[in-house]
Amino acid sequence: MVSRNEAAEFLRGADDILILCHQYPDGDTLGSATALCRGLQKLGKRAMIKCSDPIVPKYDYLFGGVEKQEFTPKAIVAVDIADTQLIGEPNQSLYGEKIDLCIDHHPSNMGYAKRSCVDPKAAATCEIIFDVLNLLNVEIDRQIADCLYTGITTDTGCFKYINVTPRTYRIAADLVEKGADGNRINREMFDTKSRARIGMERRVMETIRYYYDNRVAVIKITLEMIRSTGATEGDIEGLASIPRAIEGVLVGVSLREKPDGTCKVSLRARPPINASDICAAFGGGGHAGAAGCTFDTTMDQAEKQMLEEIRKHI
Amino acid sequence: MVSRNEAAEFLRGADDILILCHQYPDGDTLGSATALCRGLQKLGKRAMIKCSDPIVPKYDYLFGGVEKQEFTPKAIVAVDIADTQLIGEPNQSLYGEKIDLCIDHHPSNMGYAKRSCVDPKAAATCEIIFDVLNLLNVEIDRQIADCLYTGITTDTGCFKYINVTPRTYRIAADLVEKGADGNRINREMFDTKSRARIGMERRVMETIRYYYDNRVAVIKITLEMIRSTGATEGDIEGLASIPRAIEGVLVGVSLREKPDGTCKVSLRARPPINASDICAAFGGGGHAGAAGCTFDTTMDQAEKQMLEEIRKHI
Repeated sequence: MVSRNEAAEFLRGADDILILCHQYPDGDTLGSATALCRGLQKLGKRAMIKCSDPIVPKYDYLFGGVEKQEFTPKAIVAVDIADTQLIGEPNQSLYGEKIDLCIDHHPSNMGYAKRSCVDPKAAATCEIIFDVLNLLNVEIDRQIADCLYTGITTDTGCFKYINVTPRTYRIAADLVEKGADGNRINREMFDTKSRARIGMERRVMETIRYYYDNRVAVIKITLEMIRSTGATEGDIEGLASIPRAIEGVLVGVSLREKPDGTCKVSLRARPPINASDICAAFGGGGHAGAAGCTFDTTMDQAEKQMLEEIRKHI
Repeated sequence: MVSRNEAAEFLRGADDILILCHQYPDGDTLGSATALCRGLQKLGKRAMIKCSDPIVPKYDYLFGGVEKQEFTPKAIVAVDIADTQLIGEPNQSLYGEKIDLCIDHHPSNMGYAKRSCVDPKAAATCEIIFDVLNLLNVEIDRQIADCLYTGITTDTGCFKYINVTPRTYRIAADLVEKGADGNRINREMFDTKSRARIGMERRVMETIRYYYDNRVAVIKITLEMIRSTGATEGDIEGLASIPRAIEGVLVGVSLREKPDGTCKVSLRARPPINASDICAAFGGGGHAGAAGCTFDTTMDQAEKQMLEEIRKHI
């Protein structure tokens, strides 16, 4: 484990830096990568970003301040990636064993990198990137501020989750002072829904089932729903929080049918239930409030196994 | 207009203080009143809160730190009340002409009080109360922190609206440090939906129709939906913002069937469309972003008339 200072020191000595995002990229991995990339480029270094999955258009603005550069990487940095498996293909095979520095906030971080700068107290990896950029004396300009704000607000559900600390708010204050357009970003991230998203919400709400005195609610996301609504990955993101939002529900389970026949489970829990503990029983992980795991079975079988495990915790 | 210092000075010299909230009380007026009341009581003063309307149970926790005291008021303070009319009856008739101090953040404040401490740059009146309590050397304890945090988060839509400033985040940081349970408060205020509400959302989404190149979206709320889901008024509140949240939609129309055979229309618009101008054509009104009007017709006829009027504006 290295400190923020050591991470900054490594970056100060590095050049031709490849920054990797995790698969199914979200606001925190993309905000971290774009802020860091622009920061390194401002220091006169060459830097580029790679992600194994396509990036949904709503995140396009994050890349506005990043210059496109091509080179053979001499240093590889992973941001917001807890495990090499989450790099996704092809980047996992290409770079998974060669990560020089990982900057992350997941408590479940596997320590796969040569240097791991992991702070589970940070609400978002962007909080750590903010510190590292300051240590590198990078001026936080409006574009970097927008990127870091995006990671923080998306990973905290707009300052709503339990991971928010006083420092989260203070960094947000600094970023807004540096020009981050919090209002526009939050409207874009949280208040604008595509027609496909509206369609998915409606379909998903039809599948809600309650268990254990209504303390557990389960939703299902099928391939057919995704096909018939034309939903993209971005439209599906966040559907998993629907069941936990229901009054009295302690554990919200979201089952997603995958094209390869597996079933991806996203769990959302309220205290005292720990979602990560439940998913750990199936080789998954995450945070207390949000965690995930994968089943090589049908959705119905995955549901049954999840419910059996949840019963032990509730 | 008086400064925060002068407001604190007045309160320091006062006793037997009645604090008034506005009618249809929200998180900011209640958070301001309860934080101020507890703060004054901690200084050894007698203080009490009055509101012309009943307070919904979700705000009960705000009153946990307030001691019930009865006395004939010698000083009257209005919090978050822009105009005496908003005090509501009976308090408006009883106290409307006798307000010694008004602490408020509405730019439209009418200056009806003997002393008006109004700061339109504050995102919430609770931001001003925070300063005044600090000037009074009141220790911000966990209960006061919860009250002030509630006002700030509800008046900013959980840090989402355009009124949020760096100071808003910094005060939130201080309050969380003092023990405010932001996560629980935000979950309670923003993320908890009754099963009836989930049912209403699903039913309403089934009714969405698009017009004028998808720039207008219309939803319908029928008596049958309300009956079959068991929805209360609270469950219906806010459904009107569903259509405007759809990507590309400039005008969201919500038609609601009323038991007396009329139809209530709620309009939500994005700039440059002005919802108030459209509703004015039918004798209604409101703000640029949100307005309403009523039709003595069926929902279908109301929809037809609304669409004809909207066509002129779009």
